[in-house]
Amino acid sequence: MSLLLTAPGVSAHNATKPQHKSQIVLEDQGSFTVGGGVVTNPGKFDPIKLTPDGQTIHGDFAYVQYQIPRNPRRYPLVMWHGGGQMAKTWETTPDGRDGFQNIFIRRGFSTYILDQPNRGRAGRALQGTTLAPVPGPGPTGEQGIFVRFRIGIWPNYFPGVQFSHDPAALLQWWQQQTPSTGPADNEVASDAIAALFKKIGPAVLLSHSAGGYPGFRTAEKTPNVRGIVSYEPVGWTFPEGGAPAPIPTAAGDITGQTVPLSDFLALTKIPVLLVYGDYIPDPQKPSVYPGIDIWRGRLMMARLFVKAINDHGGKAQLLHLPEIGIHGNTHFTMSDLNNETIADLLSKWLKKNRLDKYGDRRDLH
Amino acid sequence: MSLLLTAPGVSAHNATKPQHKSQIVLEDQGSFTVGGGVVTNPGKFDPIKLTPDGQTIHGDFAYVQYQIPRNPRRYPLVMWHGGGQMAKTWETTPDGRDGFQNIFIRRGFSTYILDQPNRGRAGRALQGTTLAPVPGPGPTGEQGIFVRFRIGIWPNYFPGVQFSHDPAALLQWWQQQTPSTGPADNEVASDAIAALFKKIGPAVLLSHSAGGYPGFRTAEKTPNVRGIVSYEPVGWTFPEGGAPAPIPTAAGDITGQTVPLSDFLALTKIPVLLVYGDYIPDPQKPSVYPGIDIWRGRLMMARLFVKAINDHGGKAQLLHLPEIGIHGNTHFTMSDLNNETIADLLSKWLKKNRLDKYGDRRDLH
Repeated sequence: MSLLLTAPGVSAHNATKPQHKSQIVLEDQGSFTVGGGVVTNPGKFDPIKLTPDGQTIHGDFAYVQYQIPRNPRRYPLVMWHGGGQMAKTWETTPDGRDGFQNIFIRRGFSTYILDQPNRGRAGRALQGTTLAPVPGPGPTGEQGIFVRFRIGIWPNYFPGVQFSHDPAALLQWWQQQTPSTGPADNEVASDAIAALFKKIGPAVLLSHSAGGYPGFRTAEKTPNVRGIVSYEPVGWTFPEGGAPAPIPTAAGDITGQTVPLSDFLALTKIPVLLVYGDYIPDPQKPSVYPGIDIWRGRLMMARLFVKAINDHGGKAQLLHLPEIGIHGNTHFTMSDLNNETIADLLSKWLKKNRLDKYGDRRDLH
Repeated sequence: MSLLLTAPGVSAHNATKPQHKSQIVLEDQGSFTVGGGVVTNPGKFDPIKLTPDGQTIHGDFAYVQYQIPRNPRRYPLVMWHGGGQMAKTWETTPDGRDGFQNIFIRRGFSTYILDQPNRGRAGRALQGTTLAPVPGPGPTGEQGIFVRFRIGIWPNYFPGVQFSHDPAALLQWWQQQTPSTGPADNEVASDAIAALFKKIGPAVLLSHSAGGYPGFRTAEKTPNVRGIVSYEPVGWTFPEGGAPAPIPTAAGDITGQTVPLSDFLALTKIPVLLVYGDYIPDPQKPSVYPGIDIWRGRLMMARLFVKAINDHGGKAQLLHLPEIGIHGNTHFTMSDLNNETIADLLSKWLKKNRLDKYGDRRDLH
């Protein structure tokens, strides 16, 4: 196919497969919705008058796409996006390379990529909302998220940043933002994803950013979450009475939320890995940029979260990538230019925790 | 995998692949956004104050997922959903079987499934909107669409309807509805999909329902649409001055929209097929149910549209399925229980029009 050469495409998405890539061989693929609730109007439905009487609308469910490769490993990977994002997070990168979905199908894992309730294709919500396209104050405009997600200080890229300088890549990244179609509610979200894990059986959860906190909650709601790797989570659970003091930053206080101890202890039963990238200020060196300084507080709180899990007998770990010689990562670690390296770290972690074995899933239930 | 047996799933999505199905072998797959515009606030961006000044938001683009099988046929199939829907339309059916995406990948076609601007994962709009979950008057509640999309007269199914009576299938179908995140604008939509065809090169367009009209507009905007198969389109273009008289129905008048003759003539240069299902009243026998009677007018107008194309030298065709002995189809023809039969009709049409050939795409540009 010559499409890359002749079409005015913005990415390499439709190029001939590079020679080093293997074909993707799937036993099956498809999609479904899971979880959620329903609003029912009182009265009796009239199929002629078609008033609202007796009509329903289901909402607050999740939408999931799955792919099952030939001879899959036992534990699928469930991939949960962050705030203002949907499953695109895990698909083709902004510059047109394989994201974690393709990388890990090629490595033999079944994948489930999802849109959480009230996001993307899981659009029907049980509560209303108003959507306004105008870039508001704070980090909601595209220049704001450029800073907040640590690509640089707009319009300048950070030196050595693992993000393409091609304007077309930036446009693709901006366009993978999408609004919430209802209120963001971490309990609603984690209920739906817990229902997903109950449906598909034991699996490993990958989460990103604002998907971190409801992902931890999901593991507290179902034992089918057999491990969590969270890329730059921005929320953390602590046992009641055990929340650290808020950490002040130029973007406001960073706090940890509390849950019953019995919930929290679920996180001590499974391996947990947190991964953070580059350009995060040292604890004692605040940045003047709120969008950057917030990460100083978040990384500090994440370390306290890992400590809390381990103090209760768990086996959590935090990888701050620059500390192991991996530089230039933005907030979107798993789609950065070095995402194959980030994927290799995940493969190693899965192997170490015996979550990459092949074999029948029947004995897992 | 034993998932189907042990998990409380609503569909067969994660069952072992039935023996008669072949594996799906992909050279590549991925996603991207295309088309759209931008809102830019006046002023200069301040990375410390983070006011709206100088910030942008891109919107009104389409989101596209593509799969390229091993040794693909020359013309990909681009699949465009209808109103209140997104690409899920073409994926797993409500009862858990292969939709047109899988069916036609297995038959050797590259597929592009899309979310039109301001729908599903193409969520960012350039104009605001308000979303309310309460089932409103008209066919917006789930009982209303049950009638409007010709599954039956709620709560009764039509005799012989090609839709599973399993409540779990109905729930999946209801949950594949999703709201618009901005105003529906057929010009905005067809601009984005025309940009898609310009990017990927010549391809065949499949459209459904409210995707029909902007699909016709797309072919009027780019010569890369090499054929159109539209399942139950609910809008049609006529040359200026050539619109038929409105057709009254119990749900209001059915009208055809007009476009410049030079636009309309594009539809005479390519093969066009319209497909309509069952339970549509005869022209002279109105139904008391507005949600059913509207189809009487729509089918009548569709026949006039086909006639207009052919009167101008084109080669359009309308298939009313009951007339060729295929019964029980709802408005969702391509995901009904007999969708393999519907797919066979498409394969025959593609063959007849020489749109199913294998070979290099280079000479198409």
